[in-house]
Amino acid sequence: MSSTLCLSRLAGMRRRAPDGFRLLHSTTRCATAANVTGASTRAGIQASQLQKSLTTTPKALVPKEELIFGHVFTDHMLTVEWTTKRGWGSPQIKPYGPLKLDPSCSVFHYAFECFEGLKAYRDAQGKIRLFRPEKNMERMNNSAERLYLPQFDGKEVVECIKELLRADRRWVPEGRGYSLYLRPTLISTENTLGVHRANSALLYVIASPCGPYFPTGFKAISLYCDESNVRAWPGGVGNKKLGANYAPSVGPQVAAENKGYQQVLWTIGKDHELMEVGTMNMFVFWRNENGERELVTPPLDGTILPGITRDSILELTRSWDEFKVSERKINMKQIARASGEGRLLEIFGAGTACVVTPVSRICFQGKDYEIPLDPNNPSSQAGPITARIYETLFALQYGETASDWSVVVD
Amino acid sequence: MSSTLCLSRLAGMRRRAPDGFRLLHSTTRCATAANVTGASTRAGIQASQLQKSLTTTPKALVPKEELIFGHVFTDHMLTVEWTTKRGWGSPQIKPYGPLKLDPSCSVFHYAFECFEGLKAYRDAQGKIRLFRPEKNMERMNNSAERLYLPQFDGKEVVECIKELLRADRRWVPEGRGYSLYLRPTLISTENTLGVHRANSALLYVIASPCGPYFPTGFKAISLYCDESNVRAWPGGVGNKKLGANYAPSVGPQVAAENKGYQQVLWTIGKDHELMEVGTMNMFVFWRNENGERELVTPPLDGTILPGITRDSILELTRSWDEFKVSERKINMKQIARASGEGRLLEIFGAGTACVVTPVSRICFQGKDYEIPLDPNNPSSQAGPITARIYETLFALQYGETASDWSVVVD
Repeated sequence: MSSTLCLSRLAGMRRRAPDGFRLLHSTTRCATAANVTGASTRAGIQASQLQKSLTTTPKALVPKEELIFGHVFTDHMLTVEWTTKRGWGSPQIKPYGPLKLDPSCSVFHYAFECFEGLKAYRDAQGKIRLFRPEKNMERMNNSAERLYLPQFDGKEVVECIKELLRADRRWVPEGRGYSLYLRPTLISTENTLGVHRANSALLYVIASPCGPYFPTGFKAISLYCDESNVRAWPGGVGNKKLGANYAPSVGPQVAAENKGYQQVLWTIGKDHELMEVGTMNMFVFWRNENGERELVTPPLDGTILPGITRDSILELTRSWDEFKVSERKINMKQIARASGEGRLLEIFGAGTACVVTPVSRICFQGKDYEIPLDPNNPSSQAGPITARIYETLFALQYGETASDWSVVVD
Repeated sequence: MSSTLCLSRLAGMRRRAPDGFRLLHSTTRCATAANVTGASTRAGIQASQLQKSLTTTPKALVPKEELIFGHVFTDHMLTVEWTTKRGWGSPQIKPYGPLKLDPSCSVFHYAFECFEGLKAYRDAQGKIRLFRPEKNMERMNNSAERLYLPQFDGKEVVECIKELLRADRRWVPEGRGYSLYLRPTLISTENTLGVHRANSALLYVIASPCGPYFPTGFKAISLYCDESNVRAWPGGVGNKKLGANYAPSVGPQVAAENKGYQQVLWTIGKDHELMEVGTMNMFVFWRNENGERELVTPPLDGTILPGITRDSILELTRSWDEFKVSERKINMKQIARASGEGRLLEIFGAGTACVVTPVSRICFQGKDYEIPLDPNNPSSQAGPITARIYETLFALQYGETASDWSVVVD
C-alpha cells in the first residue's frame, strides 16, 4: 500500500470527521507530569542535570537486513538511580554495559520490575521522531505505583530519552518500517530478602534497532484459545506493564505452538470473554447482532493492558466516524456465532512492535474458526480496515501525516 | 515452652497415632529426582563436579542479636550455569559477590525467576540440619517448569547446598530459634528482548543468618481482608513460587498497614474464600457446623502455594488423630458466623520464616473479628494448638525429636 493512498485516506478522514479529528489532537492532556513519589525534599528526575559519558569504542552497526528484534543494542544507555532518602539522582548517558547487582537484590526474587516499549522513527527528511512518548511515561508511572517503585516526571524522562537518541543517532535505521526500539525499564536495587517496598531502584533505557515486523507484507496469524491458563484477573495486575505478567505467558505460548498455532488467545470466565492476543490488544471488526458495522475491543476493566496503539486506533477510527467503535466485552460464543452467520469481518492484534497483526484463524474448543481477511483480494493477508489502520498509524509515526502525536527529537 | 514439654507431646503423638506417625516418615517419596529438562545429551547438575574457590577475605560474623532477616549474607554462594545447548555446568562454590548481567537480560523485563526458602539449623550437638530440603527442590522444579526454566535433579542440588553449608559452617548461628536461611534462586540470563523461553539461566543459592521470628515469645498479628486485590486466580500461577507473585503483594500490604493491620488476608470470589495470609498459608482451628473440632486449610486448587510447613502441619496433626484435619474451602462468612457463635478456636499462618504465626484479629467488610488465643492463659499470644504445632515442628527441625524429615549435613 503506497504512502499516497494512506495520506489520501487520512485526508478523507479529516474531511469527513472534523470533530473526530480534533480528538486526535487533544491527547496532550496525558502529557502532564505524573506525580512524583514521596516528600518534596526528595529530588525528581531533571533532564537539565543529565551527564554524558560517551563511549570511546563505538560498535559497528549491524546491517539493517540482519536485525532480529531485541538482539542488538546501541552504544549507550540512559540510567537514573533512586533511593528513598535522596530521591532521583542525575540522569546519566553512558556506554551500554552490564548491571552489577547483589544476588539478594529483590528484582531477582520478587519481580520488582516494570517496563515500556516505544520506538524512534527516522522520517523522510532524516529527522528522528517518537510517537506519543508521554503515554508510555504515564503508563510506566502507573506500573511503578502498583509496585511501590518510584514515580517520576514523564516529560523530564522523555527529554533524557531524546538525549540518548542524539547520542545514538546513527543507530536509528533509515527506511519505512525500520525503527529504534526503546526499552525504559525500572527495577528494584534493594539488597534484602524481606518482601517489602524497595528503598533503592534504577530506571534505565536501552535501545535496539529493528526491522519491519512484516518485511514482505502482512502475515496473518492463527490463535489458540487457551482454556487452562488465564493471563490476568479482576483484582490482579493485568493492566500494568509488569515483568510479572510476561514470564508466565511463555508456557501457554509454547503449548499453542506445539498445537500448530502461532499465538495464544487469552480469555476469561465461563463465557470466554476475549482479553488479549499474545502480548497484543485485540480488536474485532464485525457486523454485530443489531446489524451495525462495529469495531470492538475489550474494555479497560483492570485486566487488559491499556495499549497505546489500542488507544490510538480507538481515537483514529472514532475520528473516521464510519462505523461504531466500542470498548466492551465480547466473548468467543459471540465470535463463533458471528463466524457462522457471516458477520465476522476482521480480527487483529495491536501493539507497538507490529502496529497491527491480522488474525486468520482461531481454535476454540477443538474447532477452527476461519477469520476473513480481504474479501476483494484473496491473496491479501489483512482485511481492509486492518490494512487501513496500519497505513494510517504508520504515516503518523513516520511523520508523513502531520500530527502532534509525533514528537520530533531534533 | 520447654523442649521437654514439646518432646513429651510428640511422644504422646507417637503413642496415640502409630499409623499417622508412619505417614510422617513416608514422605521421602518426594525426594526422587525431578525430570531433567531436555535431551539426555545435555548435562544435569552433578554434585560430584562441584568446584570450590573459597574466599581469602572472610567477613566478620554479625552478633546474632543484631541479625535482621535477609540483611546479612555469608562468605560464599553456590552457582550453576545452564544453557540450552550444553545443559548444566559444574556447580561452583565461590565468594559471595555481585551478578553481572546485561541490561537486556529477560530477568529484568519479564520476571523469569523463581525461588525457594529453607533453613539450616544447628542442633544441640552442634550438627547442622536441613528440614525436608527435597520438598523445596521438588517445588522449585515445578516453578521452573512453569516458566520453561531448566529443571534439575533435586538430590544433587541438596548435596551442593550441603557443601555450601560446610564452607559457611561458622555462619549457622547457635541457639534455639536461630538458623541460616537459604535462598535457592533460578533466573534467566538470556539477553534478548523477545518474550520467549530463556536459552540460558543461572541457579544460585545464597545464605543469610537469622534470629528467631518471635524472640520474646509469640506475637499474634491482625489481618485486613482485602476486597480489592486478588493474589492468585484459577489458571494463574499462585501455586508456584515465582517472583511474579510477590512484588504485586506489596501495595496491598502497605494499604493494610496504613489501615492499622499487620498483614493482608487474601481471599477470592464473592464468598471471600480464604487463600493465604501475607506470604503464609492459612489454618483455621474451629468447631465446625457439625460440632466437630476441625483444623482447616484451603486446598491446593492451583491458587495456593503448596507450603512445606503447611504439608508438615497436615501430616503432623493427622498423625495426632485428635481432631478432623481438612484441606477444603472455607470462607469469611463461615468465619464470621463461627466467631459470633463462639465456635472459632484459633487461626494461624504457616511458613518457613515463622513456622506458625497466631492471628488475633481480622477486619472484614469494616468489622473487626476477634480471634481467640489461649482461653486458659489470657497473657498468651498463641492458642494451644498453634503453640503445640510450633513446638513440635521446632523440635523436629532442631533434631530434638528424631525423624527423617531432618537431614544432617555432617
